[in-house]
Order: sequence, then C-alpha cells, then structure tokens
Amino acid sequence: MSDSLGEFEIIRRYFAPIGAADIGEDCAVLDCPADRRIALSIDAQLADVHFPAAAEPAAIAGRALRCALSDLAAEGARPLGFLVALSVPRAEPSWLESFAAGLADSARQCTAGALLGGDLTRGSLAVTVQVLGELPLHSPRFVRSAARAGDALYVSGTLGDAAGGLQLLQAAEPTGDPVAWQRELLSRYWRPEPRLALGQALRGVAHAVIDLSDGLLADLGQLARASNVCCELDSAKLPISTALRQLCDDPERLALSGGDDYELCFSAAPGAVPPSLVGVPCCCIGQVRAGEPQVLCAGVEQGEGEGGWRHF
Amino acid sequence: MSDSLGEFEIIRRYFAPIGAADIGEDCAVLDCPADRRIALSIDAQLADVHFPAAAEPAAIAGRALRCALSDLAAEGARPLGFLVALSVPRAEPSWLESFAAGLADSARQCTAGALLGGDLTRGSLAVTVQVLGELPLHSPRFVRSAARAGDALYVSGTLGDAAGGLQLLQAAEPTGDPVAWQRELLSRYWRPEPRLALGQALRGVAHAVIDLSDGLLADLGQLARASNVCCELDSAKLPISTALRQLCDDPERLALSGGDDYELCFSAAPGAVPPSLVGVPCCCIGQVRAGEPQVLCAGVEQGEGEGGWRHF
Repeated sequence: MSDSLGEFEIIRRYFAPIGAADIGEDCAVLDCPADRRIALSIDAQLADVHFPAAAEPAAIAGRALRCALSDLAAEGARPLGFLVALSVPRAEPSWLESFAAGLADSARQCTAGALLGGDLTRGSLAVTVQVLGELPLHSPRFVRSAARAGDALYVSGTLGDAAGGLQLLQAAEPTGDPVAWQRELLSRYWRPEPRLALGQALRGVAHAVIDLSDGLLADLGQLARASNVCCELDSAKLPISTALRQLCDDPERLALSGGDDYELCFSAAPGAVPPSLVGVPCCCIGQVRAGEPQVLCAGVEQGEGEGGWRHF
Repeated sequence: MSDSLGEFEIIRRYFAPIGAADIGEDCAVLDCPADRRIALSIDAQLADVHFPAAAEPAAIAGRALRCALSDLAAEGARPLGFLVALSVPRAEPSWLESFAAGLADSARQCTAGALLGGDLTRGSLAVTVQVLGELPLHSPRFVRSAARAGDALYVSGTLGDAAGGLQLLQAAEPTGDPVAWQRELLSRYWRPEPRLALGQALRGVAHAVIDLSDGLLADLGQLARASNVCCELDSAKLPISTALRQLCDDPERLALSGGDDYELCFSAAPGAVPPSLVGVPCCCIGQVRAGEPQVLCAGVEQGEGEGGWRHF
C-alpha cells in the first residue's frame, strides 16, 4: 500500500474509530461544562529533536499525548479531550495504525478524554497535541509566581529516570534485551505519567506548581524568577529510584538536570503535603526563602544544569 | 544577536506583549461562556509544503492564523482566542519580531481574540494554530452531511484568486513590482479572509457548510460524499474576479480546482440567501439533487481537479 491513501481515507480508517463522533468536520464542538473554566495547552514534538524518528509510532503518539497532558496536571485540570496535528513524510498504513493505537491506548490510560479533531499533513515527522481540560470556576489558579518565602518545595515520584532512559536509548552499542531496571528507565522516557489526579488533589494545597519537562534546575529556576524568591534544594532529599542508581554512580546529576520526567514540582506550606497523595509519593526537597531569584543547592547557585533541555 | 536568546526571553519579548495576561503559564485558562458550546480546530502549516520558507514572517503568521480561523467560520462560531505552536530553525530576533507583529495584526483584523498560549521549539519552520470559538448552545450545527436534494449551492466571494496568487509567487521570472491586479491576487493568497461574520449569519439558514481550502471540486466532493447527494455546478455562474481574468484565459479552471481561497461553500433552500449577506457577496453556483455522491459540471463527473491540493 502506498501514498495513494488520501487524507480522508486515513482519518476514516485510523482516527475516526478512536475519535469523537464528529471527527472530520471543520471543528470539534463540545458543550461548556457548567461552572467550569477551560484550560488549554499545546505541545509540539519533532522527530530527532524531541524523539528518535525511527521509534515505534505507538510510543511516539503515547509520549506526545502524555507530555501535553502534563501541562493540564500542573494546572490542576481534569482532561476533557485533545486534538492532534500530525505531519508524516509518507502515508504508511502500518505506521499510522500503530500511531493511532498508541494514541488511543495512552488516552485511555491517562483518562485524556476523546480525540476531538486533528490535522494531517505531509512533511517531516512532527506531532502537535493540544489538550483541553476543565477547572472549577472559582478555584484559585496555580501560577508560577505564587511561591512564598517559608513554603516547602515538593516533587512527586522520582527524578532523573527519563534522562536515564534517554541515555540507554542513545547508547552507541545496544546491549541486547534490556533487563528490568533498564526497561523501567526506558518506560519513564516513553510513557511519562501525567500527574493529573495529583494536580487536582493539590488544588487548595499547593501555591506554585510546575511540571518538570526541562529538568528540575531549569524549571525551578523559572519558578524562582516568576515568584522572585530563592529556592534552596537539599540534594540528599532528591527522590531517586533504584533503577537510576543501577544506571550510574551520580544519579543526583540526572535528578537535578535531566529533563522529561513530567513529575510535578510545587511549593506549599511546610507539612501541608503528606508523603503520599492520591497514591503518588510526594517528597519535600527543599524550601523557599526571600532573596535573589535563584536555585541554591548546598548553598551554591545552580545554573540550569548541563543535562537540562535548552530549546534554543 | 543569536541563538543565545532563550525560549522564555523570546516569549517575554515578542509574544507576551501580544498575548493574554497568563501567557507563559502551563495552560491558558478561560471562563466558559454561559450557554455556549466551544468549537475547536487545529491547523498545521509547514514551510515549503504550505508556504515558501523565505516568505515574510509577518505574512506566514497572518496566513496561518487566517486559515485556522476559516474552520471556525465554517462552523458559524465566534472566535474566542488561539494558541500557536511555532517551530523555527534559529531564534532570529528580527524574524520573530515580524512574525509576532503579523500575528497580532491579523488577530486584530479578524477579531480572533487573544493569543492564549503557545509552544516554541527549534526545528524546521512550521506553524500550528489552534483556534477556539463559541457557538450558541442550542443552535443546530453545520455538518458536511446536511446537504439535501433540492438545496441550492452557494459560495462567498470569488474563487481561484489565491491559486492565481500562488502562480504569480511561483513564477520563475519575477516581473518587477506587481501591479494592482497582481497585488490583489497575491493578497488573496497571503491574507485570506476567514468568513467569520458570514458563517455566524448563516446559522439557521445554511444546511451544510464547508470552507474551501483544497479547491471547490475537492471540497464539494467531500460534501457530496458526506451527504450522499449529487452536486451539480453551473460553471458559467462561478464568481471570478477581474484580477483573475487578467492573469489567465481559463480562470474557471482555477476557480474549480485551485485551493487556498478560504471562501465558504454551503447549501441552503433556493432563494434563502441574498446576493450579499453581512456585506459578503454570496453567489448561487448550482444545486443539490438525489443521486450518486459526486460533483457534476455541465453534466460531466468531475475529479478533484488537477490544481486542487492533495495532502497525500
């Protein structure tokens, strides 16, 4: 089969079965939930910039959706649905089938709502996901500028695992079938868990919330600048998985600088957050104090970290 | 200046001044309008697929937004705002400044609402625009499957002009400064007019509505298939501009097959649409009858037309 597959045939075959009833119309239409606000975010992922072009299409689709959903988690929003703009060099049925299956699979697992619409073009491989969520009308928003001196700093889950997975992925010499701890790190890279339930549970508890896409130091640096506060980290408290410790001798470096974890990092009153919230481990990693907007670790100012993701 | 400009500095300098107050947060948040439905559409445009990479950045931005808004027009929706995912190979200040200015300019002219959020990545030049609009809660939707035997077929504006502009743009030999009719055709390509007011005025009047992005034959073919009806065109009635007649001897060919016009094509009861609605010329170009789902012109079945845009 070949490029003779037209756009509408592709949509009919692969995306309509996993989409909302009106897929293929000019717009997706949905009723506004009463007493709600709408949260929106858009996230583009390009082959060989954000993921290897030769990866499994199901993995590419799932990761793109999960990364976009993480922005809803950091807003405390509940997902309503999503749109996908896909650019592919060729209309290859087996590739498209796997992509659509991966999308549906992650949408179900992450309760992302329905595929509401999309756009399909021929070009270099890129996936742009726009997610739509809802928030209570009168709940205060999580904003990056809301960290206050005296807050404790928390993160969910463990840090650095996705960067560890990326190291394995980029290893020059494949070392045969991955063992359990390697599979765990690879899975953290390919199937990040958008912390949606945690984000919603943090409403009324957390002050400033961000999701960790570029690395703890880089993302926390933004929070520090937006809030005009100093963030002091205690590197001994960084939550590090056994798997990451098996990968390398300096897991703290990846935990501080590695991107792609999509855990939530947030500030809240000290003691306001239990060690586990809606089943997600939450760990106090430092504190917020008045001072120059910066991130300190053992009293030393940190840059964004060598491993962190720089868009430009 | 150089790539040392970071993502957040770019957003702060060029996009925050034209964006909503919360730009830079994880999500854009807006209140749901009471008694409304939300309409959403996403549209990706890639350099050298949808537009020449070397074009003016302001023109690229304006066109991407206008094309996306056209989907809201075809839905009869009123724009609320938009998000932009931009991928650029380099962070060039003058390019970004022109892009942002072009975006703001077209947003104002088309009443697109605010730039609510976005995403900036490094990669080959691509612009993905996601538009958000509102519809009355209980108004029937325009769907492609709603054309009925006995309907008249209408189009807004004139057809083929954007394809004429593209011909000028692609002409091997530039012929010096364009004269008035050439400027008009080029403008139709670069600054298509999303027919938003017309789309809203057609609520309760039109049955099936589409916007013409791929060419009249291609888009009407979809409407015919979705509605399971035969669309009969009278090519003598096609609205053709004086400018297009100055470009070529067979303007009907471009009017039938050329893409990128972003006019509305719709079916309605015969006589239900005046020659001008909210200031936009509307022209009856044929009729809908029972029969094989196809497009006929002078009784002859039409393919999608050589000039029409094929995504694959």
